[in-house]
Amino acid sequence: MIIDKIRKTIERYNLLDYKDSVVVGLSGGPDSVCLLHILNELKREYDLKIYAAHLNHKIRGIEAQKDAIYCAKLCDDMNIHCFIRAIDVPKYCKENGYSIEEGARILRYNMFFEIKQKVGANKIAVAHNLNDQIETILMRVIRGTGLDGLKGIQHKRDDVIIRPLLDIKRDEIEKYCSENNLNPRIDQSNLEDVYTRNKIRLRLIPYIEENFNPNLNESISRMVTLLKDDSDFLDKESEKVFNDICKKEDSQTIKINVNTFNGVHKAIKNRIIRKCINFVIGNIKGIEQKHIEDVLELIQNQKTDLKINLPKGLIVYKKDEEIIFTDKEIKHEQINYSYKVPKSGFIKIKELNMIVETKMLDKHEVELNKEDKYTKYFDFDKISGQLEIRNRKDGDKIKLLGLGGSKKLKDLFIDLKIPKDERGKIPILCDEKGIIWLVGYRMSEDYKIDKTTKKVLRVSIENV
Amino acid sequence: MIIDKIRKTIERYNLLDYKDSVVVGLSGGPDSVCLLHILNELKREYDLKIYAAHLNHKIRGIEAQKDAIYCAKLCDDMNIHCFIRAIDVPKYCKENGYSIEEGARILRYNMFFEIKQKVGANKIAVAHNLNDQIETILMRVIRGTGLDGLKGIQHKRDDVIIRPLLDIKRDEIEKYCSENNLNPRIDQSNLEDVYTRNKIRLRLIPYIEENFNPNLNESISRMVTLLKDDSDFLDKESEKVFNDICKKEDSQTIKINVNTFNGVHKAIKNRIIRKCINFVIGNIKGIEQKHIEDVLELIQNQKTDLKINLPKGLIVYKKDEEIIFTDKEIKHEQINYSYKVPKSGFIKIKELNMIVETKMLDKHEVELNKEDKYTKYFDFDKISGQLEIRNRKDGDKIKLLGLGGSKKLKDLFIDLKIPKDERGKIPILCDEKGIIWLVGYRMSEDYKIDKTTKKVLRVSIENV
Repeated sequence: MIIDKIRKTIERYNLLDYKDSVVVGLSGGPDSVCLLHILNELKREYDLKIYAAHLNHKIRGIEAQKDAIYCAKLCDDMNIHCFIRAIDVPKYCKENGYSIEEGARILRYNMFFEIKQKVGANKIAVAHNLNDQIETILMRVIRGTGLDGLKGIQHKRDDVIIRPLLDIKRDEIEKYCSENNLNPRIDQSNLEDVYTRNKIRLRLIPYIEENFNPNLNESISRMVTLLKDDSDFLDKESEKVFNDICKKEDSQTIKINVNTFNGVHKAIKNRIIRKCINFVIGNIKGIEQKHIEDVLELIQNQKTDLKINLPKGLIVYKKDEEIIFTDKEIKHEQINYSYKVPKSGFIKIKELNMIVETKMLDKHEVELNKEDKYTKYFDFDKISGQLEIRNRKDGDKIKLLGLGGSKKLKDLFIDLKIPKDERGKIPILCDEKGIIWLVGYRMSEDYKIDKTTKKVLRVSIENV
Repeated sequence: MIIDKIRKTIERYNLLDYKDSVVVGLSGGPDSVCLLHILNELKREYDLKIYAAHLNHKIRGIEAQKDAIYCAKLCDDMNIHCFIRAIDVPKYCKENGYSIEEGARILRYNMFFEIKQKVGANKIAVAHNLNDQIETILMRVIRGTGLDGLKGIQHKRDDVIIRPLLDIKRDEIEKYCSENNLNPRIDQSNLEDVYTRNKIRLRLIPYIEENFNPNLNESISRMVTLLKDDSDFLDKESEKVFNDICKKEDSQTIKINVNTFNGVHKAIKNRIIRKCINFVIGNIKGIEQKHIEDVLELIQNQKTDLKINLPKGLIVYKKDEEIIFTDKEIKHEQINYSYKVPKSGFIKIKELNMIVETKMLDKHEVELNKEDKYTKYFDFDKISGQLEIRNRKDGDKIKLLGLGGSKKLKDLFIDLKIPKDERGKIPILCDEKGIIWLVGYRMSEDYKIDKTTKKVLRVSIENV
């Protein structure tokens, strides 16, 4: 008996609780009519409150009006309150850039949730059946999917949407309708993706059943059951890791440390990236595996200051040791500082947490082997006036060996492939004439020690 | 270029190491001819040693001999040593109860491994291509499979068998053969499951590509890549849990504690059972999901002394708190004991760790409300001679109320659904005439207290 099977499904997946209040999506087709009728049969057993909700999509004209009349009459016979609404779905879709299938689904579920709210219900029952499930799985295999897609349609979502008919075959449903003289309308529930789905239903599946496996339904059901367990385990494990390693900065920004992330298994990496995206934009619709791989590539990249734009305004940054998922542009903060530097002594650049040390030496005291990226010697007598250390400014130029003239600092930064974000942090040593040293990178030709040099200025910079 | 793609595959999956020595399976068809030719091209780059191995299956008569001649000539041209062997595969399969496909595969791989051993090679290269992969996946989806099956054919197995062509499409291979004038023979590699596979290749896949997804290859490849990661993660996790909770008793017996097992996620449970089966019988061929579910049901069963037989001589026992996977019958150890029981006093049944206490009472001292399963009153004067407590013996009978005669204890055990394993443990109280009490279950009619009773024997049994 179909009702026993459905009761089993309800118990197995805990679809109904005692005293639940359920809004049933009712198209008027066999699936939803059967669902409503059976829930009505189970009404006393579970002490349910039942409401029906019918949406006229304004696609089929007079036929759609007949659907609505049929639904009203059916509910009247069962003494169930039926909410009927008509929305111009094609217009809505046009205005909002949705496909008809997508728009119809959005409007339908919006209506269900509204009615649920209005009547104080706690569940929404929809009428997907086992054939829908098999078709969905095959469609996903053919189009390519991951484990999550292979789970197929779920029996329950968020403890609100329930699908009690999901283990029942279409012909059992039709048999039930005819045995109970329900005379359902031609099913409209297949509005979604009707062309592809019909070809799968009417040609591909019969071909497979005839040529390869007459028990295709059972085989795929069994596969789905196994894969659900696997997917559930992977979800739980990745949820743990996600909570462990992802730092929520604000409601739309989340960060991961690159090294921590790299220590995680590939299967979990994929899921964590999806979870981060979901955190920022609220869902992962329109996010394809290609995008996940772009993020993985970004993370694997040797460079540290990178950015990619993904659909729906999502931006993923790699900055130093962190991956940042956000919907906001991260501006480069320009740090401004300027310190007078004594000719012999210390100053601290607070903004960078660096110490600058200077010392005057005689030429014979110079130890060139102690020179490195952050310790340099200059001809003291070539320096004019006050020494200063500061961040870069527009128009900065430096005189480099062999160029016979000055180079714009901006161009030098590009040549040296220094990320924009880091340019502002590089200290620049100057005197009243110009730039002496782009610390860590290049010295000006004008201050070099030569044969005529007598006194030497040693400058060292280090982090504290 | 096909060779660049193959080099990429080789590097990605680490198929070849420098100085590898490789036995190449050579049917003479396009796939294996291309594989041999390309490995020969890579010979210098990887400093390889290459051998070819051709098996004449003795299925195709004269054509097969031509295949062998072609292979010999091809290898001669490339200066590669070619091992050619002829085995009567149909005869072997008949004798060993294999299908032709299965037997041919076994003999082929046996030959490859023998040659590998003989020449001191460390790898065996076989020529599966991307189309084989897609066909395999679709076949498995249609027939029903788990995540493990959806991974498809592997690029490398046990660091020995390698499949460098697995990312290359059949038409690329054919193009390569024709560009290099290799003139391969009609491919014999599709011997396996040729009927189903050909229908998938020649009808199902073209239909899907034309009607649903022209890029089916790419979509399924991408799915397989994702699922491999997921499957790998689940394998690793379940391997950890397996090593943690499964106790190897001997080389063919492994035990798990039921409670520990029940604390594990369903996805891991499935895999642990497979691992236990693999441990006992060395592989999991012929083990279906149905069998795994039988084991799960056995574990979930409330009863504690159960047994199921699975294929290949595998036996799974549930005994007390343990699940035992083994290939040996576990004999019920018959515990033998017999103790004389005083009419007033104690004795201990050492074998069961139980104390028997007896006491003679006057009838008015009987407190029937204190009677329970393990404390009973008997008419003292109906007892003849020495009291004894012992285990069951063949031929034991007991006189039960309303039967008008005696019942065999064996039949009573069956009626009471007492597992064989527990029957020997139940103490039996007797006198010189017969059985007085089947402790915990039934008393004999012959010793009951009635109107004429004067003296009463109270017997209590408890665990210590």
